[in-house]
Amino acid sequence: MTLVQALKEIDSGRLTFEAWVRGCLERIEERNDDVKAWVFVNGERALENARRADRGPRKGPLDGVPLGIKDIIDTADMPTELGDPEIFPGRQPTVDAAVVTMARNMGFSILGKNTVSRHSIMLPGPARNPHDLSRTPGASSAGSCASVADFMTPISIGTQTGGSIVRPGTFCGVVGYKPTIDSLPYAGLRRYSRPLDTVGLISRAVEDTTLVMGEIMSDPRFDPTAPVRKDFRVGVWRPKPWEDCEPIIHQVFDDNVRRLEKAGVKVVELKMPENFDVAAEEHDVIMSYDLARSFKEIRRDHLDKCDPDLISYLDLGDTYSAEDYGRVLTAADQRRRAFYDVARDVDVLITPATLGEAPDITDTGSNAFIRLWTLLHNPAITLPVARGPRGLPVGLQVVGFVNEDAAFLYHARCIEAILGTRASEV
Amino acid sequence: MTLVQALKEIDSGRLTFEAWVRGCLERIEERNDDVKAWVFVNGERALENARRADRGPRKGPLDGVPLGIKDIIDTADMPTELGDPEIFPGRQPTVDAAVVTMARNMGFSILGKNTVSRHSIMLPGPARNPHDLSRTPGASSAGSCASVADFMTPISIGTQTGGSIVRPGTFCGVVGYKPTIDSLPYAGLRRYSRPLDTVGLISRAVEDTTLVMGEIMSDPRFDPTAPVRKDFRVGVWRPKPWEDCEPIIHQVFDDNVRRLEKAGVKVVELKMPENFDVAAEEHDVIMSYDLARSFKEIRRDHLDKCDPDLISYLDLGDTYSAEDYGRVLTAADQRRRAFYDVARDVDVLITPATLGEAPDITDTGSNAFIRLWTLLHNPAITLPVARGPRGLPVGLQVVGFVNEDAAFLYHARCIEAILGTRASEV
Repeated sequence: MTLVQALKEIDSGRLTFEAWVRGCLERIEERNDDVKAWVFVNGERALENARRADRGPRKGPLDGVPLGIKDIIDTADMPTELGDPEIFPGRQPTVDAAVVTMARNMGFSILGKNTVSRHSIMLPGPARNPHDLSRTPGASSAGSCASVADFMTPISIGTQTGGSIVRPGTFCGVVGYKPTIDSLPYAGLRRYSRPLDTVGLISRAVEDTTLVMGEIMSDPRFDPTAPVRKDFRVGVWRPKPWEDCEPIIHQVFDDNVRRLEKAGVKVVELKMPENFDVAAEEHDVIMSYDLARSFKEIRRDHLDKCDPDLISYLDLGDTYSAEDYGRVLTAADQRRRAFYDVARDVDVLITPATLGEAPDITDTGSNAFIRLWTLLHNPAITLPVARGPRGLPVGLQVVGFVNEDAAFLYHARCIEAILGTRASEV
Repeated sequence: MTLVQALKEIDSGRLTFEAWVRGCLERIEERNDDVKAWVFVNGERALENARRADRGPRKGPLDGVPLGIKDIIDTADMPTELGDPEIFPGRQPTVDAAVVTMARNMGFSILGKNTVSRHSIMLPGPARNPHDLSRTPGASSAGSCASVADFMTPISIGTQTGGSIVRPGTFCGVVGYKPTIDSLPYAGLRRYSRPLDTVGLISRAVEDTTLVMGEIMSDPRFDPTAPVRKDFRVGVWRPKPWEDCEPIIHQVFDDNVRRLEKAGVKVVELKMPENFDVAAEEHDVIMSYDLARSFKEIRRDHLDKCDPDLISYLDLGDTYSAEDYGRVLTAADQRRRAFYDVARDVDVLITPATLGEAPDITDTGSNAFIRLWTLLHNPAITLPVARGPRGLPVGLQVVGFVNEDAAFLYHARCIEAILGTRASEV
């Protein structure tokens, strides 16, 4: 069941929040040893909150709803180990992150903390892909996406600095949404890279994401019930790593473009300026430069606990100067303007999300199609649209205009409805 | 002295942080009964921090620097009365706002809390204009701007939801900077209107603002020492309320346009789409709609303490529907794109900042030139450029591209240097 579907069951008296939360906790109990999507669960407190919501009065439409929180987001009542349990074992924040305070005020039943990939970067971590335990769930919001895919929670809060929501969202076959940067507050989260770090949501349906965003932003334009239309315009872009994709990606992407066109959507092939391909690589300049700084003390004090791949990446960051860094950020500003020029006549843009199905557990996959949008701050979402030859989910990435997230999610929901796909079932 | 000038004195051994902070505290002691720019001062703690900075090691370039904080920003060690001392007397937060945590981590010597106008909206409050105590300092970051103008602090943190930094900054003759929305974190501040609320800085020189932004954002592009150039392009726009301005505004604006042109700056007259004039009025739909909601409990529980003008404004907000609200926000999105079309060939835009010099103390002045940019999220800054016939400051508003704040502040600093003006002396 999706979040909105479960709320309808509750309204009709066929479900209680307590039963919903208990169902999530039982599923976690049953499957977490395999999926490893949670590093900490606070079942009693979640149940207590669910019972309060059942008793009423309801705080709002999301009061009582189960929620997972990525373990780089500070929680005053649960440890927050920042994806580095060896370096920060049992680390207990004294204050909630701003986004956690918002979630508590809205009445969410917070189930616990979701597993993060190693060092909270693109390195493999303990979490598994619930569709096939030998496959990666992606990184770094690995547990956040795996837990939604595996019915352990209807929604979770994750973050993206490279491809950390859209990639695991795709591999796990759920709806992974990276809003425009700074839409959700970053205060109280570990900083990796200020120009990139973005808080987002993982759910099983765009209407769920829309409902939650509307409540958080107090913006009635996020309307999960607005009637779906087909008379809008979708830009299609097949960026550079297109040639490196598994054939299933080409097949699914082209097939979905045709299905949209057949349904009456106006499809426009877009040609981005050539330097947009470089931009995805420039993302590495910013991220490695900032990581070299944000991991400085960890590297100095805990070198023995640092993965050699982390160290190589920090070394890469140290090769860049402040001038390189500034040059790339300025180039990103220019591309942000250029995006308006190229995409002015469409409502949203679609591109592939990943190069293929989820690789095996030693490789978290590529973010080549994703990181450009993290760098440019555009809202992006992955929709599960098919299964590949190995039976694993294949996604479609939808991209919108900066700060126009309500219109963006509306069009993503229209595309989801036209393609008739929702989060894949395990 | 500006912040950067004082830091040079410290580096050369002619000044200590303790003496700097003590000088601020003495000035507050001497003048605050008249100017009423502070509602709370914590001199001992600020001095203690300054002595720590003097002893070293320095935490960074801003360690020890005196700072004022607007009293709608939560501080765990000082009361925060939210501009409503009758409704929230002695209100003591338990947690610092995110931006206060950042300031503490950077080592600032926090002097205290700056006076906010009545109900923290456009109603007159206790603060006075230090240039003429019978005149308004503007609203709502009234004490923040008055205290910088009156040499009580070199820098202060304020906020803008309508014209609350640029207007009092102009009336007080200081440099008032509203960054792109969400550049500085809003967590821990009272919410007025999510699509508008913006944290910003008030200082005496653009290089001070640049230095502080660069440190907060860890972005080397905010470089206060980058050489000033004259080969850039300024767009000139005289929006609708131009006809309603006092003659001094026309005279100062046209004179400064000529001076820029004469210096070699390329000046381009811009014609905005006609609906940009409407946008400034649409700002009221958003703000009144949101205020009606954010003041709901206050109105219910403290009606006797509410100003009739506040109630009228909340009543106005209640006349708008969620649909009106959504329509205006969507129109703002469209104008944000249109702005790129019109302004693509310039680096920054200049417009007047206010309709005239500061009115008397019963009127906080108009934000007609300012609120459009709050609604559209563009960075905006007011530069003091002249004195009017009553001897009060007249400003120039410079506007930049969303999310391009480093380039924006650079060009604002170039304009400041070319015009040869800095924060007026009392």
